[in-house]
Amino acid sequence: MISIVGYKDKVVELKLDDDFKDYKIVWIDCYNPKDDELYKLSKKVNIPINDLKVGLDEQEFPRLEEEEDYYLIIYKAPLYEEDIITTSLGIFIKGNIILTMHTDKIKAIGRLFNIVITKKPKIIFEKGIGFLLYNILNEITRGYSRIILGLEDELEKLEDYLTTGYNREMIEEILSLRKTLVYFHKSLMANRDVLIQLKRRLLPITTKEDRENFEDLYYDTLQLIDTLSTYREVLTSMMDISLSLENMKMNQIMKILTMVTTIFAIPMWITGIYGMNFEYLPLSDNPYGFWLVLTLMIMLIMLFTYIFKRAGWI
Amino acid sequence: MISIVGYKDKVVELKLDDDFKDYKIVWIDCYNPKDDELYKLSKKVNIPINDLKVGLDEQEFPRLEEEEDYYLIIYKAPLYEEDIITTSLGIFIKGNIILTMHTDKIKAIGRLFNIVITKKPKIIFEKGIGFLLYNILNEITRGYSRIILGLEDELEKLEDYLTTGYNREMIEEILSLRKTLVYFHKSLMANRDVLIQLKRRLLPITTKEDRENFEDLYYDTLQLIDTLSTYREVLTSMMDISLSLENMKMNQIMKILTMVTTIFAIPMWITGIYGMNFEYLPLSDNPYGFWLVLTLMIMLIMLFTYIFKRAGWI
Amino acid sequence: MISIVGYKDKVVELKLDDDFKDYKIVWIDCYNPKDDELYKLSKKVNIPINDLKVGLDEQEFPRLEEEEDYYLIIYKAPLYEEDIITTSLGIFIKGNIILTMHTDKIKAIGRLFNIVITKKPKIIFEKGIGFLLYNILNEITRGYSRIILGLEDELEKLEDYLTTGYNREMIEEILSLRKTLVYFHKSLMANRDVLIQLKRRLLPITTKEDRENFEDLYYDTLQLIDTLSTYREVLTSMMDISLSLENMKMNQIMKILTMVTTIFAIPMWITGIYGMNFEYLPLSDNPYGFWLVLTLMIMLIMLFTYIFKRAGWI
Amino acid sequence: MISIVGYKDKVVELKLDDDFKDYKIVWIDCYNPKDDELYKLSKKVNIPINDLKVGLDEQEFPRLEEEEDYYLIIYKAPLYEEDIITTSLGIFIKGNIILTMHTDKIKAIGRLFNIVITKKPKIIFEKGIGFLLYNILNEITRGYSRIILGLEDELEKLEDYLTTGYNREMIEEILSLRKTLVYFHKSLMANRDVLIQLKRRLLPITTKEDRENFEDLYYDTLQLIDTLSTYREVLTSMMDISLSLENMKMNQIMKILTMVTTIFAIPMWITGIYGMNFEYLPLSDNPYGFWLVLTLMIMLIMLFTYIFKRAGWI
Amino acid sequence: MISIVGYKDKVVELKLDDDFKDYKIVWIDCYNPKDDELYKLSKKVNIPINDLKVGLDEQEFPRLEEEEDYYLIIYKAPLYEEDIITTSLGIFIKGNIILTMHTDKIKAIGRLFNIVITKKPKIIFEKGIGFLLYNILNEITRGYSRIILGLEDELEKLEDYLTTGYNREMIEEILSLRKTLVYFHKSLMANRDVLIQLKRRLLPITTKEDRENFEDLYYDTLQLIDTLSTYREVLTSMMDISLSLENMKMNQIMKILTMVTTIFAIPMWITGIYGMNFEYLPLSDNPYGFWLVLTLMIMLIMLFTYIFKRAGWI
Repeated sequence: MISIVGYKDKVVELKLDDDFKDYKIVWIDCYNPKDDELYKLSKKVNIPINDLKVGLDEQEFPRLEEEEDYYLIIYKAPLYEEDIITTSLGIFIKGNIILTMHTDKIKAIGRLFNIVITKKPKIIFEKGIGFLLYNILNEITRGYSRIILGLEDELEKLEDYLTTGYNREMIEEILSLRKTLVYFHKSLMANRDVLIQLKRRLLPITTKEDRENFEDLYYDTLQLIDTLSTYREVLTSMMDISLSLENMKMNQIMKILTMVTTIFAIPMWITGIYGMNFEYLPLSDNPYGFWLVLTLMIMLIMLFTYIFKRAGWI
Repeated sequence: MISIVGYKDKVVELKLDDDFKDYKIVWIDCYNPKDDELYKLSKKVNIPINDLKVGLDEQEFPRLEEEEDYYLIIYKAPLYEEDIITTSLGIFIKGNIILTMHTDKIKAIGRLFNIVITKKPKIIFEKGIGFLLYNILNEITRGYSRIILGLEDELEKLEDYLTTGYNREMIEEILSLRKTLVYFHKSLMANRDVLIQLKRRLLPITTKEDRENFEDLYYDTLQLIDTLSTYREVLTSMMDISLSLENMKMNQIMKILTMVTTIFAIPMWITGIYGMNFEYLPLSDNPYGFWLVLTLMIMLIMLFTYIFKRAGWI
Repeated sequence: MISIVGYKDKVVELKLDDDFKDYKIVWIDCYNPKDDELYKLSKKVNIPINDLKVGLDEQEFPRLEEEEDYYLIIYKAPLYEEDIITTSLGIFIKGNIILTMHTDKIKAIGRLFNIVITKKPKIIFEKGIGFLLYNILNEITRGYSRIILGLEDELEKLEDYLTTGYNREMIEEILSLRKTLVYFHKSLMANRDVLIQLKRRLLPITTKEDRENFEDLYYDTLQLIDTLSTYREVLTSMMDISLSLENMKMNQIMKILTMVTTIFAIPMWITGIYGMNFEYLPLSDNPYGFWLVLTLMIMLIMLFTYIFKRAGWI
Repeated sequence: MISIVGYKDKVVELKLDDDFKDYKIVWIDCYNPKDDELYKLSKKVNIPINDLKVGLDEQEFPRLEEEEDYYLIIYKAPLYEEDIITTSLGIFIKGNIILTMHTDKIKAIGRLFNIVITKKPKIIFEKGIGFLLYNILNEITRGYSRIILGLEDELEKLEDYLTTGYNREMIEEILSLRKTLVYFHKSLMANRDVLIQLKRRLLPITTKEDRENFEDLYYDTLQLIDTLSTYREVLTSMMDISLSLENMKMNQIMKILTMVTTIFAIPMWITGIYGMNFEYLPLSDNPYGFWLVLTLMIMLIMLFTYIFKRAGWI
Repeated sequence: MISIVGYKDKVVELKLDDDFKDYKIVWIDCYNPKDDELYKLSKKVNIPINDLKVGLDEQEFPRLEEEEDYYLIIYKAPLYEEDIITTSLGIFIKGNIILTMHTDKIKAIGRLFNIVITKKPKIIFEKGIGFLLYNILNEITRGYSRIILGLEDELEKLEDYLTTGYNREMIEEILSLRKTLVYFHKSLMANRDVLIQLKRRLLPITTKEDRENFEDLYYDTLQLIDTLSTYREVLTSMMDISLSLENMKMNQIMKILTMVTTIFAIPMWITGIYGMNFEYLPLSDNPYGFWLVLTLMIMLIMLFTYIFKRAGWI
């Protein structure tokens, strides 16, 4: 699907067949295009199809490439699938055209494009193509930010569970959480390297103000990375502790089992002995026999209970 | 809440509406401000609200930023919540004004500000704004120091527990301890980088003496980082050992259970056999039958006990 | 086995005895050669046998070596044995000859050579020996790519298993998977260093276009390394989680055992008591005796069941 | 406690009130001084008390500081407490005075000072203050060396235990061993950085020979660090293996328990069945009934024993 | 023990008292010398005893030292003791003398010296002292190579065991294997640094060809390091997996135990109930009573078996 907006003195929606030359900035968003769409697009922007396809690879490594007549920025964005992982996004900048290509749905792009179409704000176009690029990357970074904020709540919830109960759903949540942390950490590290280049290199597409904006974004990304690695260590701690707790519980359970079995072992054996069918069974015809044996058994039970209590098992 | 002190030839409390120009140094402490307070403050110090807000973000990454007409220092301070973690603090320096901004309550700031208001000491103002900055950062670092000293006691207490008992509260304490270690380590690492800049760069706000002070602070921070990482490794050792101990205990419990079950298995079966209601039961009418069978059972019990003893289970 | 193709204006198969001078490019593929083959080859290309043997060592460390009259590139390629690991490949470039040497079967080489022989494409020879080298390395890298793509499916399959069942085959699969990840990671890291040299150094055998191609290959390799390390961390997470799940299951099993044993301990003892052969057994001749005792036992069972329920075991 | 020796042409003991000017070298050892001692010392050597106190902090980070009129070296030395850990030592060098300050007892210092007082050797004073410094640091390093040599024996002892028995004392020993390894590693790493500076920088207090001595000491420290990290990895291996062994033992114990329970389950049930008080019990009046049932039970026991044997449990 | 060979135009065995001046190269091998041997040697080669002793320290850190009139190379070689670990070897080069010193028996040295004495090959002496040095280091490196090749077989054997059985000998083997891997890794890393210097620095004792040889040796060492670290990771994987397998087995055992106990709990209780000696026992005089109760018990057993089957335990 290809959506286009152009900006001259106001924001207008365009089609691929329109003439782009009169516009100051044209933003083409190309999401999971069909082959013929891609072909048309390639002809229109005059970039070979194979080059465009680089922007559609979900696993492309983030970087800034300076080609002869265009710039390519590969950037990682959050992806909401079964778990929250990340996907790659290709941004081509050629003359007055900024082209975002992605195979997966990227929320930040959708959100920004929606605002552009509905509210038609001049402000993000007026300052040039570098500022629009900043806005796109900023929107993506804020997408990470929002999710990471949510992870903190989840971590705290898990910590509460940890000391009270523990169940299968929780484990699946931890697995999903760790996965997100792994993907986000790697992606943000790579994005950071792109931002370092954008803030340092004097590209013709960025103004001094843009570069300062990219520097801010760089610090935001640094902060997210730092937060993530803190979360990872806290989660690891929690996993270690949970293992300890499980072991403690198991010990507790085994103690009960062992106690019950041990306490009743001899009394049961005694009832077995007196259940044997011998004609001459000592005490069997004594009227106090039963009470004697019963007392013996109860005393044995109390003795063993006392032993376990002294050993600190109860 | 906004509190202000000014220093000309003595220390006086000020209000936001007062004229700051006549004072050598004005220290504004802004803690969790309301929107209108922030607005007023922004107008007064002539720094845009959005820039001020950076100082209020609890997770801002520590750094030293040199803006056109002010300096911004982001620094991490200990935060006493459920667990002891860390929070960010923004320090703006513009002309004769030093402005500390924070969303969370920071003990070190409170303590220092209190001293300033009650004792009105000239000494920390006389040497200029760089020395005041040093005092603030020093107070924060000593806050870390105090907590870390306490952690050592806690570690030793845990080590004692480890070899005697082991319970749920202890595990929660370990979890909380590890969390503190993680947060402190990351925060002190970042603070260290700020201090490296403060001790190296020839900023107009710092004198040679200030930079030497920052160097001392840098070494203090290094020492705290070193201590923390030692504690972390010791704690990890303790967790590993505790897991081993738990396993050993479990083995011990299982041995008892297995022994009891095994020792009584055959005697119980024998009592079962002689409890069967057959008319022709061998030995059942023999007057010594009972004693024979009983002796057999006791001998079996002694035999198995001996076997377990030889195997080193008891 | 030695196979040779030459390219002048078309692609032709050659023998070792043919004259190579007239050809623009001659590609000799030497797979697990016999001693006499190696001897002949050494004489033909005029490289000492001991030098050639370096290319046959499966564990040779990847590198680019510039000898007096030839270049040697050692590169790691995937190897399909019991598990998927990696093996080394030696590529000698001397004048118009490119010589690939390997002891293990390398799929990528086989595939490319097959295409060359059957389809006789000019395109990969026209652009010179550097482009052919790029094609070989590219084919190998795409071999990694294909396998790594398959690993993702396997990871997802394992994740599904994890939360449902868990068996021995799965564990063997994990072991094999981890082995592949370890070998691939190390090999790709080393290959990357070779590619860095190929893209940077101005060798007489590579054109500017070749170096750009090697740069692309470098980024592909970087991406594969990144993907691999993500997979490794995800797999580690899964292993940790699986350990937790196993422990949880064990706890569940032990709870059932303990409950059953505990609930029936006293009722069994009571039946034992009333099974004893005393003449004077209280209640034994009471017509309601049996029902009284039975009721007592059932109430005890219900009581213990209730206790375990309240403790959250059921 | 303050002890002083001076060297002119022979070694003499001095008091704090003596005049130090006539001596070539004066070594003041100040161990855990009282406040008034510290005050006097500060006045005598003309270094502010607060600066001296840096040398008394047990956790001060090792470094070489060049102040205006003195040098300060912070160095880590082994400390014998409950466990063997490390403590900090401050060495001030000012003119002809070398001042060692420490709060904890440091064996190496004690040993060296003792030799100086009893044997009054000229040799360590003749070559100047840099050589004395080298002797002090060397004595400390040899202290580490001696302890680390002892750790190897302990490691071997633990390895022997591992495969034979395993008990609580051993675990406490491991914990203490790991603690020592952690502290030593960190301390030696920091000492190494001090030595790098001492061997490289052309300080007025060191001669070329001194710097060569420090280089030797640097290599010794490197070797100790290397040995320590080898020990740590070996100890980690041993802990992992011991966990495996514990698990194996547990499995063995559980197998016995399960076997005994399973083998006797049906025979016990059969005795239960024939123990029931029914008037019409099949076979009960058959003279061979008992032998029939007994044979059945023994055959069942043999059958289950055989099954477990085939499954490899015995 | 001191053994000496000299080379003029052929290889001859020498004694310490012989005159070394006429020989082009003299190789002295000094293995675990007695004090008087060391004293004589020191006088002969004119190197202080204390310097020579450095070469005898088994834990000396590998390095290349350039002294005033000799070179010292410390190198790590494999050592066959209880486990295969490593030891240090000192090589002194002074004029035409190459002196190898070692406290432990080093196979590579023994092998090479043996060849020299028995076969008297000129080839390794003709090219000068640098080439002899290369031959010694090469022999040592090939010693590592040979052992590491053997480790691969051992790893595969362990992997096979892992999925079939698991016993104490295997665990001891793993422990020994891990120890070797740790020692080898550290030693080869240090040797590599020595080789980097030998291949880079223009020492008067090495020719250009020697330096190229050292470069080859450097790559060999790199390859061994790489192989070792791969083995370590594979071994770690195997240990993790084996822990998982142990847990799985334990779960299996516990399931059997729990099933047997649970299935027979109620039937045993029923037999207990009917074993009680009440006069009025319901159904006891009913001729079908026994069969009724037996059927009930069998049905219960079948019911529980079915429940466990449905829960996937069998």
